[in-house]
Amino acid sequence: MSVQHIVVIGGSAAGPKTASKIRRLDQDVEITIIQSGPDLSMASCGYPYYVGGVFDDRNQLLATPTGAVRNPAFFFKAKGIEAMTGTEVTNIDRAAKVVSMRDVATGTESVMKYDKLVVSTGATAVMPPVPGIDLEGITTLQSMHDADFLRKVRDEGKIKHAVIVGGGLIGIETCEALQLAGIKVTVVEMLPQILKFLDFQLAKLLENHVRSMNADVITDNGVAAFLGEDNKLTAIKLANGTELPCELAVVAIGVRPNVALAKASGLEIGERGGIVVNDYLQTSDPDIYAAGDCVQIKHRITGQPTLAPYGDLANLQGRVAAQNIVCGDNVVFPGTTQTGICKVFDFSAGATGLSEMQAKEAGFDVVEAVVAGPDKPQFMDSKLLLSKTVADRVTGKILGFQCVGPGDVSKRIATMAMAIQGGMTVQDVANADLPYAPPFSPAVDHVIMAAHVLENKMLDRMEGISVLEVQKKVLAGTDALLLDLRGPEEYEQMRLGIGEVLIPLGALRPRLCELPEDKDREIICYCKISLRGYEAASLLKARGWTNVKVMEGGIMAWPFHREK
Amino acid sequence: MSVQHIVVIGGSAAGPKTASKIRRLDQDVEITIIQSGPDLSMASCGYPYYVGGVFDDRNQLLATPTGAVRNPAFFFKAKGIEAMTGTEVTNIDRAAKVVSMRDVATGTESVMKYDKLVVSTGATAVMPPVPGIDLEGITTLQSMHDADFLRKVRDEGKIKHAVIVGGGLIGIETCEALQLAGIKVTVVEMLPQILKFLDFQLAKLLENHVRSMNADVITDNGVAAFLGEDNKLTAIKLANGTELPCELAVVAIGVRPNVALAKASGLEIGERGGIVVNDYLQTSDPDIYAAGDCVQIKHRITGQPTLAPYGDLANLQGRVAAQNIVCGDNVVFPGTTQTGICKVFDFSAGATGLSEMQAKEAGFDVVEAVVAGPDKPQFMDSKLLLSKTVADRVTGKILGFQCVGPGDVSKRIATMAMAIQGGMTVQDVANADLPYAPPFSPAVDHVIMAAHVLENKMLDRMEGISVLEVQKKVLAGTDALLLDLRGPEEYEQMRLGIGEVLIPLGALRPRLCELPEDKDREIICYCKISLRGYEAASLLKARGWTNVKVMEGGIMAWPFHREK
Repeated sequence: MSVQHIVVIGGSAAGPKTASKIRRLDQDVEITIIQSGPDLSMASCGYPYYVGGVFDDRNQLLATPTGAVRNPAFFFKAKGIEAMTGTEVTNIDRAAKVVSMRDVATGTESVMKYDKLVVSTGATAVMPPVPGIDLEGITTLQSMHDADFLRKVRDEGKIKHAVIVGGGLIGIETCEALQLAGIKVTVVEMLPQILKFLDFQLAKLLENHVRSMNADVITDNGVAAFLGEDNKLTAIKLANGTELPCELAVVAIGVRPNVALAKASGLEIGERGGIVVNDYLQTSDPDIYAAGDCVQIKHRITGQPTLAPYGDLANLQGRVAAQNIVCGDNVVFPGTTQTGICKVFDFSAGATGLSEMQAKEAGFDVVEAVVAGPDKPQFMDSKLLLSKTVADRVTGKILGFQCVGPGDVSKRIATMAMAIQGGMTVQDVANADLPYAPPFSPAVDHVIMAAHVLENKMLDRMEGISVLEVQKKVLAGTDALLLDLRGPEEYEQMRLGIGEVLIPLGALRPRLCELPEDKDREIICYCKISLRGYEAASLLKARGWTNVKVMEGGIMAWPFHREK
Repeated sequence: MSVQHIVVIGGSAAGPKTASKIRRLDQDVEITIIQSGPDLSMASCGYPYYVGGVFDDRNQLLATPTGAVRNPAFFFKAKGIEAMTGTEVTNIDRAAKVVSMRDVATGTESVMKYDKLVVSTGATAVMPPVPGIDLEGITTLQSMHDADFLRKVRDEGKIKHAVIVGGGLIGIETCEALQLAGIKVTVVEMLPQILKFLDFQLAKLLENHVRSMNADVITDNGVAAFLGEDNKLTAIKLANGTELPCELAVVAIGVRPNVALAKASGLEIGERGGIVVNDYLQTSDPDIYAAGDCVQIKHRITGQPTLAPYGDLANLQGRVAAQNIVCGDNVVFPGTTQTGICKVFDFSAGATGLSEMQAKEAGFDVVEAVVAGPDKPQFMDSKLLLSKTVADRVTGKILGFQCVGPGDVSKRIATMAMAIQGGMTVQDVANADLPYAPPFSPAVDHVIMAAHVLENKMLDRMEGISVLEVQKKVLAGTDALLLDLRGPEEYEQMRLGIGEVLIPLGALRPRLCELPEDKDREIICYCKISLRGYEAASLLKARGWTNVKVMEGGIMAWPFHREK
């Protein structure tokens, strides 16, 4: 029996992509998209930029590059696909291969037979179960409706104070959008840091940047209640009792896969809360495939199931599911490396693979390096990049890379994402042939520099210490010698003020006599980015000091208060 | 016998890098750099940007990021390295392990013993053997001296017309630099195209851009003679007799490894004209290593020896050579994928791996795809990227990728360089997890899109035809149906005017009756970037037309005259 009718539940990213790819592979099969909301193929990752005024035409979120709005007429004419909007699927009868649905506006119920079914029901924003959650002025940024609401907030210009609940990707993007709308924004995050895909110290640098842009960040503090008058939000009460007056709250504490329909129909739901699919994106029912934010997929490094609700993966999954439906199960979706990025005012922050903590939890023998450096030669108006690279000491394979700063983060994340997906080792990256020209990168690119530092650590040529550990030592009253290797002019302009001694690298050889007589005394070397710090450490170790460390990333990586 | 003294011949990129890394690995060995010119560690790739006025401080080409000029005093104080400038090595006595040298200023001769020797003598610009080559006003852009000369030309503002002889990387960068200096520039290239690391059609798009910036490009034409009066350049005579009046000519037809010294001392020189080194960068004499522009290294895809005179590789080679000298031969330099990039006014152009032609010459069963698309979502002020991806039909491995356009080319080249170096296949790239957010890329990134198109071609889901072939057919008077699938408004704004028929994709299904009754008639579908062209082709093939092709890259890839 040949496939006659393919029904796709969900019309955001994965659904329309699956439907469109099926059509390109098969011009005869009947394809129906059933979408509960009014819109189709929304560019939902673009909502913050519409809200922030980067562009003004709402249709751009719904249109093809040439401006054709992707409505049911477009799907029918351009692709021969029936798209039913405002239609909610209420039941999947897997035995009869029938879906039941209801017209959201009229309540009219109907049924539709399918030969193959695609479930792409997406995800829903999680709302905190605290008092006042239903007050007017509390929203998410998950739908066109939300985007319209927040854009109106921008356009009306009445709201002065907003709180973003949750310092993840969407929270941080929304923070920038509302600040661009002239609103004073505070981000509240329950964890000790924002953007949990970053390790702590890089996240702190980002928090500093957000604060420098006149938005506020409060970490280690959850929302206890939303307070209001006349059913309107007036303030947020935090767990520690602080009250933040605000007329608007955007909740962005995460999303949860929409699996109620799948679950009710008996499809297997996994331990991460997503629909279970095999490598072909087939659910526990061979006639039903699933793709997008509603599924759990394989983490490519740990092999564990994971949620990865990203628009790019939804599109890739849709394409894979379509091929497997039409051509038989022959295309494997390889999973995710949890690669992501966001823009935060003048900084970007991105990550791919495992963070140091995740890699340790996954049982790897981790070696990591924090590196600071310019994204171009200094004479080309370069900007700073700060990164942390994580590798497996046993195999040398790169496990993760995260990067923040005003420099071109996006290129480095993409580069290292490919290195990880290609199974490359530290030594492979250390000798990578990348496109070099001054407008685009320094002669030794940041990712290569990161591999060099990692290699030096792996071969015990350098012992690193993180700025966090140094700060801990300083707070505890360390007797380590803190050695700043920069020049006196640099020191005048900027310095940590943690009891350090300044000896410029160029003066170190003749001044070795000033260093501790006790050759076992701890010495911590650093400079602006700790390249000179590393050179100094090499010299000191060769001259007999046994406990010499390099503060990784140097002053540029120091997220705490500086004397200057 | 332990190593006491390491002598490094050459003080540009590879030499100082080797010396510095040796010092970090060994604080006791004596290290001497012998440099014939007056400067050390020049950022030679930065010369065009100094000439073009991107920055004004000449010292930035010679300084560390914190402004310390890398002169002999710097090398001595910061690194404990002796650097002798203005000193020419005249002989290497390998038996005695002694180099002879001469002070360029005084003529004083001396000798120096070495235990290990590093040859990093660089490369020299090739000069065309034509009459008038010694006229005043003819230069290269290979040295600080050249950069100083051209910067003076800029600052004086007297010269009005310049010719760049050679349309390679340096020629094109110099073209922009001189044009920014207010000079009317013509680039003359002997080959049918500029930037021979690009395949023809992408190079033509770049030529169009250069012309649109008010510089001129003449291809297929060499220099027959430099003409002058009073020993000063006044014009260039081309092979076809054209005379181009000019007061300045910059020769940039390539570089040749400086191997005279190595050759005279009996070191093996390879068929590509570079010093032969093994994987450890050791020459045919085990006590002599070589690195940088003077060596020939392995192409990582073909395995063949190749010249790769790039500053980034010189640095990487220096680091590898140093490790092998100090720690025994244990670090392999993996070779090059010939990854390069240059900025050309508002475009960039880059490549990694093999071009289509090179891949065919190397014996691969080549499949290639030309793709046009935005570098971000359209609502984010996206810019165009045009690329050609080359893969091996047998293994599916990516062999090469080249990309041009106003969009973020650099990121895509870096991404694909890593994909190639990681041995990734088309299917791997088709499902790559890359960092997606609207400020940085479209939901399906350009490189992934390129892999999708390649996959479609490899699976015979799409038959492509290049714009070059289409143009050939049009010129020859084809009876193929040329089908433009865009909307009427788009057609009004821009069109090829090659006898095409316009049927918007959304109207194609009901208008199939207008298509040729002869189902074997050739039909060539396209649109702006040929995505709609591909959808149309899928439909037409399913409806029985047997000879349906997609013009790859669409109108955006068309480098020839357009009606509109």
